[in-house]
Amino acid sequence: MYKKLLNSQLSRITPEQYKTIGKTPVVLILDNIRSQHNIGAAFRTADAFAIEKIYLCGICAVPPSSEIRKAALGAEESVEWEYHEDTLTLVKTLKAKGITPLAVEQTENSVMLNRFIPEPGKKYALIFGNEVKGVSQSVVDICDGTIEIPQFGTKHSLNVSVSIGVVLWEVVSKMGRLFER
Amino acid sequence: MYKKLLNSQLSRITPEQYKTIGKTPVVLILDNIRSQHNIGAAFRTADAFAIEKIYLCGICAVPPSSEIRKAALGAEESVEWEYHEDTLTLVKTLKAKGITPLAVEQTENSVMLNRFIPEPGKKYALIFGNEVKGVSQSVVDICDGTIEIPQFGTKHSLNVSVSIGVVLWEVVSKMGRLFER
Repeated sequence: MYKKLLNSQLSRITPEQYKTIGKTPVVLILDNIRSQHNIGAAFRTADAFAIEKIYLCGICAVPPSSEIRKAALGAEESVEWEYHEDTLTLVKTLKAKGITPLAVEQTENSVMLNRFIPEPGKKYALIFGNEVKGVSQSVVDICDGTIEIPQFGTKHSLNVSVSIGVVLWEVVSKMGRLFER
Repeated sequence: MYKKLLNSQLSRITPEQYKTIGKTPVVLILDNIRSQHNIGAAFRTADAFAIEKIYLCGICAVPPSSEIRKAALGAEESVEWEYHEDTLTLVKTLKAKGITPLAVEQTENSVMLNRFIPEPGKKYALIFGNEVKGVSQSVVDICDGTIEIPQFGTKHSLNVSVSIGVVLWEVVSKMGRLFER
């Protein structure tokens, strides 16, 4: 009744087809993420939700890298990416192009993720920060807002690849993408 | 305007307080998860969303373990857990206690996560499987259903700790827990 599907039954598309499908109007900015495992997982999640592009900034490692590949399982070949040394300069550039930068951070005046409603027609740059320091305050300062994942426990902190998954899922859901299926 | 909060401003509760707060009526079952990093991340996510308990089954490592701790950051001390050698026996036992087992898997007749509506009053056991093999078919066979995370890309596969984050977020959201805030 609940027979597991074979890989061949998953309607997976090729990296070539992936280039041509409609993308979710979201780019990811990884601000000085240290772990290549987290970077690889971000590629895999971005591939799953058809995110437009990943910007790897600062100390982020870049493909090709066997460590990134181990977590990305090849998704680093489907999802477009660019390296930028300085996150702040990148965010200013994207903002000038009309993209709305939002940092995922626990800040004053943050919007709880469940209350965040993406505006139709807008493209968002979602910024995730270093495993220990989070998104740099200088980057947060030029964002149009911050999104916070509400939490109830002792830690108030999720692994950054988990945060990326949760936020992308919620945003992609609210963009109505999933409900077409 | 978006000043980052200090740890002391996060309303984090102590492990002792955590024992006493109302829990989300969900338990996690980890079916033969190989990576201690994934197990640690599961603890951290379970702590964030106040999940009742984690069942570690089969080849799963258990606390105390420095590898689990590195990813859990101490959440393995707040969230209750139990080890069971055999996942199938555990699922049968929980089912007999009235808990509804659902495997997170890509199967025939799966419910897409965005369409899954938890029933009020029910307690769920959400089962996540091995990094390569997923949830065992024998375990899937005795579940009351399967939940699938819809995906659009080349891989159709998320890191298991990312899947746990996405599914718990969605279920916790739909249980209305977040909207009280």
